[in-house]
Amino acid sequence: MLRALELAATPGVPLGPNPRVGCVLLDADGQEVAEGFHRGAGAPHAEVVALAEAGDRARGTTAVVTLEPCNHTGRTGPCAQALVDAGVRRVVFAQPDTNPVAEGGGAALAAAGVEVEHGLRETEARAVNRVWTFAVDHGRPFVTWKFATTLDGRSAAADGTSRWVSSPEARRDTHRLRALADTMLVGTNTIDVDDPELTVRDELDQPVPQQPLRAVMGLRDLPATKRVFNDRAPSLHLRTRDPHEALAALYRQDRQHVFLEGGPTLAAAFLEAGLVDEVVAYVAPMLLGAGRNAVADLGIHTMADARQLEVTDVTVLPGTDTAHHTNVRITMRPSPAVEEEA
Amino acid sequence: MLRALELAATPGVPLGPNPRVGCVLLDADGQEVAEGFHRGAGAPHAEVVALAEAGDRARGTTAVVTLEPCNHTGRTGPCAQALVDAGVRRVVFAQPDTNPVAEGGGAALAAAGVEVEHGLRETEARAVNRVWTFAVDHGRPFVTWKFATTLDGRSAAADGTSRWVSSPEARRDTHRLRALADTMLVGTNTIDVDDPELTVRDELDQPVPQQPLRAVMGLRDLPATKRVFNDRAPSLHLRTRDPHEALAALYRQDRQHVFLEGGPTLAAAFLEAGLVDEVVAYVAPMLLGAGRNAVADLGIHTMADARQLEVTDVTVLPGTDTAHHTNVRITMRPSPAVEEEA
Repeated sequence: MLRALELAATPGVPLGPNPRVGCVLLDADGQEVAEGFHRGAGAPHAEVVALAEAGDRARGTTAVVTLEPCNHTGRTGPCAQALVDAGVRRVVFAQPDTNPVAEGGGAALAAAGVEVEHGLRETEARAVNRVWTFAVDHGRPFVTWKFATTLDGRSAAADGTSRWVSSPEARRDTHRLRALADTMLVGTNTIDVDDPELTVRDELDQPVPQQPLRAVMGLRDLPATKRVFNDRAPSLHLRTRDPHEALAALYRQDRQHVFLEGGPTLAAAFLEAGLVDEVVAYVAPMLLGAGRNAVADLGIHTMADARQLEVTDVTVLPGTDTAHHTNVRITMRPSPAVEEEA
Repeated sequence: MLRALELAATPGVPLGPNPRVGCVLLDADGQEVAEGFHRGAGAPHAEVVALAEAGDRARGTTAVVTLEPCNHTGRTGPCAQALVDAGVRRVVFAQPDTNPVAEGGGAALAAAGVEVEHGLRETEARAVNRVWTFAVDHGRPFVTWKFATTLDGRSAAADGTSRWVSSPEARRDTHRLRALADTMLVGTNTIDVDDPELTVRDELDQPVPQQPLRAVMGLRDLPATKRVFNDRAPSLHLRTRDPHEALAALYRQDRQHVFLEGGPTLAAAFLEAGLVDEVVAYVAPMLLGAGRNAVADLGIHTMADARQLEVTDVTVLPGTDTAHHTNVRITMRPSPAVEEEA
């Protein structure tokens, strides 16, 4: 199973709606016959890769898989059936798949006479797919809210200018984080006012090959000429103001990780709905004294109701020249107390 | 000189208006005869300590001192004269003393026939007394401005409640920093509204033996019953609203390090006057969305005029229990660009 977990965590595997999975086929002596991992949406599943490598030698083996083999026909056939067809004798998996469209693989295998065990190193397997697991457990995408702020909580100066609150290094770091999500989400107002393209660019400022979905939410009509609707990446206009509805629509489209960047009002709506699972703040060492607030009114009147977060990481992003200063990235999650309230 | 610098940097030397100084007496063969360091205001100077230890053996020695021997009679006599009287043949010092009340020791020694050299390891010597050196160079105290803020730039909620923005660990850390300064400075408004005692407490919440001066600035009369005027530490009411005047008055009283804590308006006045030399921000991972701004209006209207700072240190202060969260201390100095403007 440790080898299967290693395979699942293979670096550079393209991210998409699918979980990262590793599979190892063992013979009766416990010797490895073949192995495989899933390379992302559209590519064969880990079990299928391993079975293909093994060929006839798959017969009678034990398949060790990090996730319960799927039981549905999507872009690839059900893995449970493939394992049965190949004559696999026993399947040991770590994490059960509770995704409604894929679940039931273990039961299908058992019904076909395959010995099935599960739960081995489940915690580690869940950690490999932290966001996917969250989405499946909660029936909605995991939401990362990113914002940039001056030390005194401003996202723009009094005259509306906001270039640049964050340093070039912080902006590059943001693109790196965007690429880890499958969906970017902003409000119609951000599109109207700033007309961002919302593509993910690499270190050389070139668009990365696999772009997240660009989702815009809000009731307002938007001209098709807006850059967010260009052909660099898929786009989607969600005609709702309700964060719950927006996330439900995205989850139905197999989206598991929303990167929320659009405007203080949208962020406030998600915060008030208890739908922010991770907060990434880029703090720039500058003071404005006045200007646009980085965070909009949350309906909080007294300290006892302050929205408490827990720091999970603090990273200093050094500036590479004197003009562009060091920024501090603070990553947080809602504190347990807040979760209990929600 | 390295040993003299070590002596100067002896940990635990009480802080006061005086610089930290180390002195080593060497015989003709370069062997150490005696050494000494200054223990703080009122205590004998490093040279005097070394001379006392050496007694008659001081005659003909070379005195290696981290700072130019003083030439004035304060609570102790001039060291230049003491070195001459003891028959010291040669004096090597690192940092010239440009403090108007003490300067001229080198010239006095030379006039008395003592061989004088200086400049050896001056950079290191200046670093030992970073704040003192700044004060002497600029003719005013070094100003550290400390503030606590939520992630969204608030120091209090909409109803005025502010306990607690910062964690207990951050508040303890603040007391540690206060103890490194010789003066705490707040505005009359802070005294009126919050009535803080402004004493420095140790880890066990007991007042430390050597308390900084508690200075209050502003024109308003204050009742003598305010806690800042109790007998736990000296207090001073500076009847001015002008940061320049306040610092000049404090410098005349031999104050070299002001720890500015009092209110956003006072801080803004110092910032606008270019009189903040170090900024210490305690960032608490909580959101208020509304409430009192941690930093008052600075007269900045556009991003190009944002007050830029340079991060010199980022320290995570972990919370010791789940209720009191991790805070992040960000220490900054004005960026060179801002200094040029000032």
